[in-house]
Amino acid sequence: MAVKSGKTVFFENRAYISAVSSSVGKKEGEGPFGNYFDYVSKDSRFGQKTYEQAESEMQKITVRRVLQKAGKESGNIDVICAGDLLNQCIGSSFGLKELNIPIIGVYGACSTMALSLITVANMIESGAADIGISVTSSHFCSAERQYRFPLEYGSQRPMTSQWTVTGCGAMLLNREQKGAYIHSARIGKICDLGIKDQNNMGAAMAPAAADTIVGYLRDTDTVPSDYDVIFTGDLGFTGTELLYRLAEEESIRLEGHHADFGKMIFDRERQDVHSGGSGCGCSASLLCSYVMDMFEKGKYKNILYCATGALLSPTSVLQKLTVPAVAHLVNIRI
Amino acid sequence: MAVKSGKTVFFENRAYISAVSSSVGKKEGEGPFGNYFDYVSKDSRFGQKTYEQAESEMQKITVRRVLQKAGKESGNIDVICAGDLLNQCIGSSFGLKELNIPIIGVYGACSTMALSLITVANMIESGAADIGISVTSSHFCSAERQYRFPLEYGSQRPMTSQWTVTGCGAMLLNREQKGAYIHSARIGKICDLGIKDQNNMGAAMAPAAADTIVGYLRDTDTVPSDYDVIFTGDLGFTGTELLYRLAEEESIRLEGHHADFGKMIFDRERQDVHSGGSGCGCSASLLCSYVMDMFEKGKYKNILYCATGALLSPTSVLQKLTVPAVAHLVNIRI
Repeated sequence: MAVKSGKTVFFENRAYISAVSSSVGKKEGEGPFGNYFDYVSKDSRFGQKTYEQAESEMQKITVRRVLQKAGKESGNIDVICAGDLLNQCIGSSFGLKELNIPIIGVYGACSTMALSLITVANMIESGAADIGISVTSSHFCSAERQYRFPLEYGSQRPMTSQWTVTGCGAMLLNREQKGAYIHSARIGKICDLGIKDQNNMGAAMAPAAADTIVGYLRDTDTVPSDYDVIFTGDLGFTGTELLYRLAEEESIRLEGHHADFGKMIFDRERQDVHSGGSGCGCSASLLCSYVMDMFEKGKYKNILYCATGALLSPTSVLQKLTVPAVAHLVNIRI
Repeated sequence: MAVKSGKTVFFENRAYISAVSSSVGKKEGEGPFGNYFDYVSKDSRFGQKTYEQAESEMQKITVRRVLQKAGKESGNIDVICAGDLLNQCIGSSFGLKELNIPIIGVYGACSTMALSLITVANMIESGAADIGISVTSSHFCSAERQYRFPLEYGSQRPMTSQWTVTGCGAMLLNREQKGAYIHSARIGKICDLGIKDQNNMGAAMAPAAADTIVGYLRDTDTVPSDYDVIFTGDLGFTGTELLYRLAEEESIRLEGHHADFGKMIFDRERQDVHSGGSGCGCSASLLCSYVMDMFEKGKYKNILYCATGALLSPTSVLQKLTVPAVAHLVNIRI
């Protein structure tokens, strides 16, 4: 049975990462981690007529590939835990409907991948599942027109804004006690410091990231240097600076031990996206490619993955409400 | 540890239902179960300026009341699992942000309450949580303008359409081994029979309900008469007829052992809502009032609660896609 310390959960029947798969769009494929992804769409349309269907197709391709890599059929899978940014999570429901796998839909905005991993790890811990898949996606074109403006407007974006990543990551978890595993996790609380600027989500999410990371370090009595890297996804350039300041107020120095997926996925000079990447596909695609590759190569042995989500909607923005945020964390070890 | 039979999970460290609370709008308060709800808003606005904020306020009121009934503070709660129908689930995030409870956002359209109960039950089983809350809501006015037309249009509705319930239900689960508990559960797979009529969601959801209920009865080697009632939520009048036909094809006769929350919540003669109620607040509010009251009074000892969700969005409808559906089931016993 899992053990708790504060709000942190330590798993006993651990979920082992048996296979990962990632798919991205053209722009992400041209970024610094382009070579790590399993599939790069040549035009971000994934052969579909609409961007929403492209996102669903991307999920389908990614899950099929993770099944193939793990040598499993969809009939072997006890549960798939999925989510995305689209209204009513249609990226997941249309992408996964043909797989015939019991499905748990989760929503945590850009924190969804960590939430999905925690949910599957819990089901493996409880005995409710022997094998499960976590998957999340985002798509620049479907997100941009839903959250902001039609792409055709070519709207100018402020420097604090982030670029929604076209990407998807899937992870197959089981009990096979081989390779990297989910050691512990912390489900985040909603933090709301009153920020109302939907173009500065890094600032809205940084307090949630700080709350979850500081809480985890305290519950585990560890310091940042105990981990190969503390990853966040996705604070971007603006949010990362704020996270460092908030952690320092708690006497924790993250600089030098931290990396943000939103800052990593695009080349700042060559692919100007202002404050970096975002979207639940950003951290999911990098986690399920580069990060797990580093585990495979023995370069990582112990990381924290803290995914952050801004819990706004276009309606809440129009109603001039604040941007509440949440951050969920998993510790992956080998 | 939980045990599986087929896709059905039997819990060992069971989640006991320590307290329930429900809130509804004016129309639901005037319905046949009006006296069972804890809180009836006099105008469905719950004192707020917008309908979305009214829905959030309804969640807040309901969770505060369930905490009060159970004699707990929000600091005692390990996890709250919440969801609603609004884009990016803002009903939950804005409703619960001040509670400071670790939050798992779930999305299963109108099946969300069952999904939320399964998720919390799993965390109690795994040891990740000792006390958790499940909560879901829907609001007629926020849903109608999001999914269909501005209320001011006064659009005519076809006879197969259902009326989104303004309602919320919250359940506090713990390990105290007292009263009713969640015995077993089945997470549903997505079923898609190709229905494209967004005004006939009962028909879209009936195959998912049949798949989950028939699967559960087979995995447990039970028949409908073994249960006090098999509840679905919310197939309405049209979907219920179809469910009976689909179950009969599998040689299972549900008639006489089944009730649908969508058919129950409004008076068909007095409050004409065509095919009945819907929305994740429909089954949540009736489960967390009337149904648990029947357990308390000793009238129910063993029920199935199968919540169904139509996984469409206005975008998928405009793109002329089908309506995939899912149904999740929990067995509550005393």
